[in-house]
Amino acid sequence: MIIQHYKIVEEIIPEEQGIKDVKMRRVIAEKEGAKNFVMRIFEVAPGGYTPLHKHDWEHEVFVLSGSGIAANTSAQREIKSGDVIFVPGGEEHQFRNSGDGNLEFICLIPMKK
Amino acid sequence: MIIQHYKIVEEIIPEEQGIKDVKMRRVIAEKEGAKNFVMRIFEVAPGGYTPLHKHDWEHEVFVLSGSGIAANTSAQREIKSGDVIFVPGGEEHQFRNSGDGNLEFICLIPMKK
Repeated sequence: MIIQHYKIVEEIIPEEQGIKDVKMRRVIAEKEGAKNFVMRIFEVAPGGYTPLHKHDWEHEVFVLSGSGIAANTSAQREIKSGDVIFVPGGEEHQFRNSGDGNLEFICLIPMKK
Repeated sequence: MIIQHYKIVEEIIPEEQGIKDVKMRRVIAEKEGAKNFVMRIFEVAPGGYTPLHKHDWEHEVFVLSGSGIAANTSAQREIKSGDVIFVPGGEEHQFRNSGDGNLEFICLIPMKK
């Protein structure tokens, strides 16, 4: 069994087009022995956002703290601490921080994409 | 995209041998369209525990609130809010609430077990 506080895991700054002020930690991944899915934790600074994009694989998300917007090109919905979000594969999505503090969320993806 | 607060999801009381004061919500599962892994949220009351058991599939866990013990037959380790836990398939495990408030954690499992 591996137990560690998520803040101990190395922070990565994802470099993608259309991303702003986002940090990511891959807290349960290949290194820990994960075989089927990967747990990442994202921290989006106030005013920051993940890219508006889509891909074949799904996201399973839990909002840990802060508040923001889950958006696609046609709609925007508020998200807040305690919300769970399922983004099916192939669906456009973006997460934006619209609050004063950091927006933190867990986001899981399948390992075989 | 499905967005809902986790407290809105129906609470289940798992009935298993060796379990005490545990409630579970399957927050992202078949109904929501999950294909590869299932997100459940557990609430263990003070003094409660999950069964000491093992199975072929892994757990990916994030502790949301409270404090407790992650145990097997030979060892016990403290767990607290913000800890991430990986339990490989085949490894014995139990989660106990040793605190005064509820112990809440997210626990993901693969869909094909």
